[in-house]
Amino acid sequence: MEEFRKKIKLLSRDLKYKGSIMNIYDDVVDVDGNKVHWDYMKKCNAAAVVPVLSNGNILMVRQYRLAVDKWTLELPAGKLDRDDEDFLICAKRELEEETGYKSENVEFLCDTYTAAAFCSEIVRIFVATNLILGTKHFDRDEELVTEEWNIEDLKKEIFAGNIKDGKTISGIMTYIAKFNFSK
Amino acid sequence: MEEFRKKIKLLSRDLKYKGSIMNIYDDVVDVDGNKVHWDYMKKCNAAAVVPVLSNGNILMVRQYRLAVDKWTLELPAGKLDRDDEDFLICAKRELEEETGYKSENVEFLCDTYTAAAFCSEIVRIFVATNLILGTKHFDRDEELVTEEWNIEDLKKEIFAGNIKDGKTISGIMTYIAKFNFSK
Repeated sequence: MEEFRKKIKLLSRDLKYKGSIMNIYDDVVDVDGNKVHWDYMKKCNAAAVVPVLSNGNILMVRQYRLAVDKWTLELPAGKLDRDDEDFLICAKRELEEETGYKSENVEFLCDTYTAAAFCSEIVRIFVATNLILGTKHFDRDEELVTEEWNIEDLKKEIFAGNIKDGKTISGIMTYIAKFNFSK
Repeated sequence: MEEFRKKIKLLSRDLKYKGSIMNIYDDVVDVDGNKVHWDYMKKCNAAAVVPVLSNGNILMVRQYRLAVDKWTLELPAGKLDRDDEDFLICAKRELEEETGYKSENVEFLCDTYTAAAFCSEIVRIFVATNLILGTKHFDRDEELVTEEWNIEDLKKEIFAGNIKDGKTISGIMTYIAKFNFSK
């Protein structure tokens, strides 16, 4: 691959905006002799969880998302507390904060780049089973409603374009493929 | 849901940075009486395609992504030429530009929000069949290698955490679930 790699060379990366959850940079890049500007977002990584109840249903969270001006149905998720926080610890915390359930059976499902074209963020997605009731306590700026969903209904909502959240589609569909629910 | 909606109120949205593919805003939001700052990214929507060859294999593109400093394996995709461009026209164009194949059988698969927490972007994902050879011509700042992949191998790469691109995992796994490949 190195013959291709040589064609893309970062010339400079200038910080343009420090946001509350991201920093935005202007990258100047030499692409095979052409000098171009690319946007680059440095953002803390995050973890998401597919929480599976003993009856096979999935715990989802419904919340209002200002950026898309819609109510969304999503997997519980949240960003790492610090850059070097362990993804698994973050996943367990977010599961309990957003759904009220704890689990010691939380296993890796897949890794997702939010937007490889411009953003550094990885969301690591886990599957949690053997859920036990813990304590629900939201972040100050979140408001969530927890809902229990059947897998087949979640699939239908994705096929219909009603569930749109990217990490949620990746997590639900990868969970289905891995544990081979065919119908 | 309106009882929840009332708790989140956008007070102001100030443009902070105009990038090459995005604008970044500082939102001041009243969340149930607490005034908080949220980052908001306005970004043009995009389309992606799961291109299915007559033998059932999938055409993928490998490219170097500076934002994650990795070579990635992704579905062909690209952003709309203008805000109101039709997703389907964009999907057909990107398919041909990135793989060299054309199709008149391009159907809706699912919609994905790139990052509902802070970004307006929707990536609409399609399935393309009956592929016929067209003309490959990359954008100036892209370099891509087209690869043909078996579905089972793509699944393994996702389970192993090797394929990470979000829209790609959503597209491949939703395609598998919809057309019920069980193994």
